[in-house]
Amino acid sequence: MSEIERKHTNARMSKIVKHGGLIYLCGQTAGGGAHAEADITVQTAETLLRVQDLLAEAGSERGRILTATIYLRNIGDFAAMNAVWESWIPSGAAPARTTVEANLALPSLLVEVTVTAAVP
Amino acid sequence: MSEIERKHTNARMSKIVKHGGLIYLCGQTAGGGAHAEADITVQTAETLLRVQDLLAEAGSERGRILTATIYLRNIGDFAAMNAVWESWIPSGAAPARTTVEANLALPSLLVEVTVTAAVP
Amino acid sequence: MSEIERKHTNARMSKIVKHGGLIYLCGQTAGGGAHAEADITVQTAETLLRVQDLLAEAGSERGRILTATIYLRNIGDFAAMNAVWESWIPSGAAPARTTVEANLALPSLLVEVTVTAAVP
Repeated sequence: MSEIERKHTNARMSKIVKHGGLIYLCGQTAGGGAHAEADITVQTAETLLRVQDLLAEAGSERGRILTATIYLRNIGDFAAMNAVWESWIPSGAAPARTTVEANLALPSLLVEVTVTAAVP
Repeated sequence: MSEIERKHTNARMSKIVKHGGLIYLCGQTAGGGAHAEADITVQTAETLLRVQDLLAEAGSERGRILTATIYLRNIGDFAAMNAVWESWIPSGAAPARTTVEANLALPSLLVEVTVTAAVP
Repeated sequence: MSEIERKHTNARMSKIVKHGGLIYLCGQTAGGGAHAEADITVQTAETLLRVQDLLAEAGSERGRILTATIYLRNIGDFAAMNAVWESWIPSGAAPARTTVEANLALPSLLVEVTVTAAVP
């Protein structure tokens, strides 16, 4: 059976888990820093940049995302989030996606993105 | 490593993603058409029919669903959704399932279903 | 292709689904019994014990969880839930995790946990 590889592991979670040719990332947000006060456009861009960096560290890339679950604090941000998302996803490589409204861990957070990706 | 196959791919998402013996569908709803004004019973039936059609297109079937995540706009619709769901799932083939309440992309949408399935 | 194994299957869901080296559990809660009136600390502990028992039955363990999605009725319970979670996860084996706020099937339920795990 395949071994489990983890990166950035603390007592609560691993930012990256690899197993059986798949990469699982923990839910990504714009974080608790300066960006967390930003609007949905900035937060989405920051969140997707974090996803991108973690996928690169895991040996994959945004063009190999299989699934994405997007949680929006305000579903009214759907169009603005999509504008950033669609400019970020490589042409022809969009994953299976689900988007719903949900409150997130911090009141300032407007979007959280959880992805799985394939190892090349 | 396994190749990624995608069907019905646009700038935002693919309705079907296949990889490594698994099928991932994007979140399915009754859509933005006439059915979206319908009640939970009709919307659930319509949503599951869409799941069924996509699974058939992907070469699988409802009896090979591994996981389902169901989002209900009103958790009070739990029993009515379940009645449709339970008549749709083949006997003995029910997947691992999670159901929570969440607002969806359009105000008219009452239920969204995200599934993964196994290739036969 | 890999066969699908299911345990505790009824018309609605299977508590355990195994396929291709992976274990999928249905969303676990403290249940509708006495524990459902309990606070977040007790409900989280009870929920994780159920996850642990199901993983054992499936031939895996909490140290092989790959992903966890945690739904909290009140996101304000985040810290109290985490305290139980972090004492339950084996050191160095934390999964990729996402936590959001959502109403659950019963008004008394404060937390629901959905995991996937690897077969050893």
